[in-house]
Amino acid sequence: MQYKKSFNFLKSLPTKLNLFYEKKSKFGIIVSNKSKNKKDFDPVTNFDKSFEKYIRSLILKKFPMDAIIGEEYKDKNSRNDFKWSIDPIDGTRAFVIGAPTWSNLIGFSYKNKSLLGLANFPELYRYYISDDKKSYVYKKGKKSVLKSSKNNNLKTIKIIGNFHGIFNFQKQNKITKKFGSSFRLFSLDALNYCLLAEGKVDAVIEANLKPYDILPLIPIIKNSG
Amino acid sequence: MQYKKSFNFLKSLPTKLNLFYEKKSKFGIIVSNKSKNKKDFDPVTNFDKSFEKYIRSLILKKFPMDAIIGEEYKDKNSRNDFKWSIDPIDGTRAFVIGAPTWSNLIGFSYKNKSLLGLANFPELYRYYISDDKKSYVYKKGKKSVLKSSKNNNLKTIKIIGNFHGIFNFQKQNKITKKFGSSFRLFSLDALNYCLLAEGKVDAVIEANLKPYDILPLIPIIKNSG
Repeated sequence: MQYKKSFNFLKSLPTKLNLFYEKKSKFGIIVSNKSKNKKDFDPVTNFDKSFEKYIRSLILKKFPMDAIIGEEYKDKNSRNDFKWSIDPIDGTRAFVIGAPTWSNLIGFSYKNKSLLGLANFPELYRYYISDDKKSYVYKKGKKSVLKSSKNNNLKTIKIIGNFHGIFNFQKQNKITKKFGSSFRLFSLDALNYCLLAEGKVDAVIEANLKPYDILPLIPIIKNSG
Repeated sequence: MQYKKSFNFLKSLPTKLNLFYEKKSKFGIIVSNKSKNKKDFDPVTNFDKSFEKYIRSLILKKFPMDAIIGEEYKDKNSRNDFKWSIDPIDGTRAFVIGAPTWSNLIGFSYKNKSLLGLANFPELYRYYISDDKKSYVYKKGKKSVLKSSKNNNLKTIKIIGNFHGIFNFQKQNKITKKFGSSFRLFSLDALNYCLLAEGKVDAVIEANLKPYDILPLIPIIKNSG
């Protein structure tokens, strides 16, 4: 019951979020640095915050008992075993410079098992979503079932990755050299995983992920094969 | 006369190219390496070739006297001073892994002076175009005039760049460190310059450009301020 209701809720979000973004984008982007270490730069914008507030309010209205965790605000505890996770803008750095590859990530889990996920890309006019059996992409409203690639030949696979600066350049150079021409370093954030589920790339290498970064993506990837 | 006719022609291309791509995308992508040096990887696909063939055929039909230069085929000499330049897929590497940031670039020049440019992004449902006075972006059919940013304060500007591997990682590290948090290395190819014209970023640093990479973009950037 809750499952079906949660899926329908998730499915209704892209239209709402895109409209919200369209209205909001008349205002400028204000960037601040949320890193405690002054030397680092971990940007957050007024858009991250207002997206998360808006998504929280929608969840709260429909599912007042469920837990909510999000990137910008405090955890809300649950009175049941259902939990929503929100990354209001995955790819804030891309967002700030106007690159259209950022997304809203929303996941739904039961007893810490990821059940449903949504990755909504307002500027790409597409979203990725999973139900209990399959994953889908909607591009400009047109639906396709996702099927990941079965290629595991290390000589021909296409790999996409992002190390988020955890290695120094020498180390990174060494890793990418090992994979040769098939490896492509792309800062596409969640889109990396969506392209995996779509079968456009064969593997993703990534470092330094946080729970709200990956929870919504797990069911989308799983259901694609 | 020729000027207005050329602009109208350029303006008619996105619809045609997107339809062409939609039909063609039912077939798979075949990648080959066109680098003469076996160690390098300079990918070209069947899509690069058929896009260029198609664009050449459209130009030839409308402007049989004009010169054409393109990335994949031989130069066609002119019997006048008008020249078309084609980069059928700018961002072939992005295209191969399914990243939606690749574009078709088409430029029009007179006596080697760039007059008009088109950057069409089929998977972003948008294109950038210039006429003799202004530059525009059409997003899902909705038109906006482009206005580049006036920010030249080195502490607050947003810079986007791509070195295409001409520097080793140490050197690259040094350059990006110098710019600090404002610098973002993004492999968005022509989209970097379109975001500049749109005022989303304040500066672009790029290396290793070829004529057909940049000719179509010059008028778009110039007219945006």
